[in-house]
Amino acid sequence: MEELRLREREAGLVPEAFCIAPAAVAGGLSQDIDTPSLVLDLDAFEDNLRTMQVLAERHGVALRPHAKAHRCPEIALRQVALGAAGICCQKVAEAVPFVQAGLRDIHISNEIVGEPKLRLLAQLARKAHITVCVDHPVALKALSAAMAAHGASVGVLVDVDVGQKRCGVQTPDEAVALAGLAQSLPGVGFTGIQAYHGGLQHKRSLDQRRKSCDKAARLIRRYLDALERAGIACPVVTGGGTGTAVFDVASQVYTEIQSGTYAFMDTDYGSIDWGEALAFRHSLFLLGTVMSTPTADRAIMDFGLKSTSAESGAPQPVGWPGLRCVAVHDEHSILQADDAKNLPVLGDKIRLIPGHCDPTFNLHDSVVAVRGDRVEAIWAISARGLSR
Amino acid sequence: MEELRLREREAGLVPEAFCIAPAAVAGGLSQDIDTPSLVLDLDAFEDNLRTMQVLAERHGVALRPHAKAHRCPEIALRQVALGAAGICCQKVAEAVPFVQAGLRDIHISNEIVGEPKLRLLAQLARKAHITVCVDHPVALKALSAAMAAHGASVGVLVDVDVGQKRCGVQTPDEAVALAGLAQSLPGVGFTGIQAYHGGLQHKRSLDQRRKSCDKAARLIRRYLDALERAGIACPVVTGGGTGTAVFDVASQVYTEIQSGTYAFMDTDYGSIDWGEALAFRHSLFLLGTVMSTPTADRAIMDFGLKSTSAESGAPQPVGWPGLRCVAVHDEHSILQADDAKNLPVLGDKIRLIPGHCDPTFNLHDSVVAVRGDRVEAIWAISARGLSR
Repeated sequence: MEELRLREREAGLVPEAFCIAPAAVAGGLSQDIDTPSLVLDLDAFEDNLRTMQVLAERHGVALRPHAKAHRCPEIALRQVALGAAGICCQKVAEAVPFVQAGLRDIHISNEIVGEPKLRLLAQLARKAHITVCVDHPVALKALSAAMAAHGASVGVLVDVDVGQKRCGVQTPDEAVALAGLAQSLPGVGFTGIQAYHGGLQHKRSLDQRRKSCDKAARLIRRYLDALERAGIACPVVTGGGTGTAVFDVASQVYTEIQSGTYAFMDTDYGSIDWGEALAFRHSLFLLGTVMSTPTADRAIMDFGLKSTSAESGAPQPVGWPGLRCVAVHDEHSILQADDAKNLPVLGDKIRLIPGHCDPTFNLHDSVVAVRGDRVEAIWAISARGLSR
Repeated sequence: MEELRLREREAGLVPEAFCIAPAAVAGGLSQDIDTPSLVLDLDAFEDNLRTMQVLAERHGVALRPHAKAHRCPEIALRQVALGAAGICCQKVAEAVPFVQAGLRDIHISNEIVGEPKLRLLAQLARKAHITVCVDHPVALKALSAAMAAHGASVGVLVDVDVGQKRCGVQTPDEAVALAGLAQSLPGVGFTGIQAYHGGLQHKRSLDQRRKSCDKAARLIRRYLDALERAGIACPVVTGGGTGTAVFDVASQVYTEIQSGTYAFMDTDYGSIDWGEALAFRHSLFLLGTVMSTPTADRAIMDFGLKSTSAESGAPQPVGWPGLRCVAVHDEHSILQADDAKNLPVLGDKIRLIPGHCDPTFNLHDSVVAVRGDRVEAIWAISARGLSR
């Protein structure tokens, strides 16, 4: 029997286990991390967590960081340990590893449609305090029926379009009708409104962001007034992001803010004007290796679209003056040097700031947490790929 | 003890197993697939496999399909069963699940730098016939040393830049020097040259592609002549893609072509001019659900950048006239209708053609293989995320 198995193995009929070694080991040197890898600088990361937490607390507003930015329970646990009221997720399946990791207050900041998703939602809601968004009576009724059928209940936030032109009701009357319906149905309860405007977050000028936030706040107040006139209490107004947090906390309309990227930053958020407003540090990096230097001004890196998203621009090297990422292919990126003396050599490892952190995290199974020149931990991005 | 465990579980101290149901079951109805999901139409897929295989055989050229397009061993096995000579991978780690699945002839069409990657490569090379690319003597010597140290050997293809301006040697003299070095070192053997020009694949005009291919072929011939003058046999010339396959097979320079996308197609390849040249069908779709219809001309879908790559353009709906995807956010996409009568309703499931198939496959853990209205199988995208 053993001999037969040996012969089968030699003939390739029995699968052989290959060992893809982990990219890093806790306690190892940062410079030994294999590439491409996602690297988190813990000092900068922890600074960012504190900065945003202090800002929110100073204004008496809750911080509910958005976990869609990172999909990593270890990160969410640290945000909550510092005082965050809970977290946001964007999808039902995404919330699963966070509940498994012990998070017990999760707002799913999205509409949920379809029986399999409602069934999973009910499972989660029996374990944790869950709120979800609605913007349509048909979806709200289906949500209520599913929760009631599975013996669960969720809080409902009416999603309000404050200018993003994505989901959300278009008028205060619709919001009042949905809130009233939520109050009347089993398995759901009206908790408040969500007013998120993603488009504002990335406006370059600080002053433009301020003015747009003021406009959104005036619109939100119209919704709050309408609910009040209808005699419907609205304990929660959730929304806001990293780019507008400083205005959102002072707006007098939000009870909680949903910022996510503040913990990491990316080239997109890094390029907007921050004025004296807030200072977040770049904590998230893509680590790559120079795998080819075919000419005196060009270095080819060993990462591409499968390790970093590029729809918000290419990642940019840190600490390499005169070097710029000019193209991102499937598994290669091209660095262009302004001068031959600024070109790295074969095997050099280079840190780059990703263009957009959310979809970049979603490409990796883990993030390597470093402090200075040492690897402190490897954290699983447990919700990677969980988009249902 | 049991009671204590029960109390701990109730207190949330023991992790509870949640069941994220699979998106589809074999034998189920296509319309019941949960979303977002990647769906493969097997009839169209099999047609595409046959079309390319017949084209290659008619010209006496080997087909070595690129597995970076799909990262799915079940797909590669079907390509080889139809006559493909082997497959290409782009990364060492990517090749692991293909070797585990029984593939025994793999060209890693890329330069490999770094000790962990060379160690894994040696493991693979003891199990399967592996070739890799080189474009630098330092990397070639490191490759040789690692293979010799681990008792393995790989074939070496000198990577030649035929105009892509990415990796690859710049002159025939460099190619001859590297080929000679490969012949002299242990653990490696000179197998031929790789001449791939990704940029040509996507040129819109068929005539432009023909002319560019002719130019590339003339350049390749200069490399072949130089090797011949040096007395170095060059059994393999590998390269070519989906967009230029019809010219590559007739070029008289390639001994094998590396096309990958032909099996699936995407909006990028779908939009180039094919003339009478070849007809590949769209076999790959992203399935999404309408989760919000906030206005009479706008439907919001439940997928975004975490389910489809967007750097080559948004995915486009199939079978919905007057409906167009105008924006892709992290977890939402926005469909715009030219007229209210063309707007889908809440809960409708819509198939879309992805903008770029390679990074889109890499976002999913599995692809649902359907034939007509039935799910035939769920195939694991086993190399998803394996970019080292």
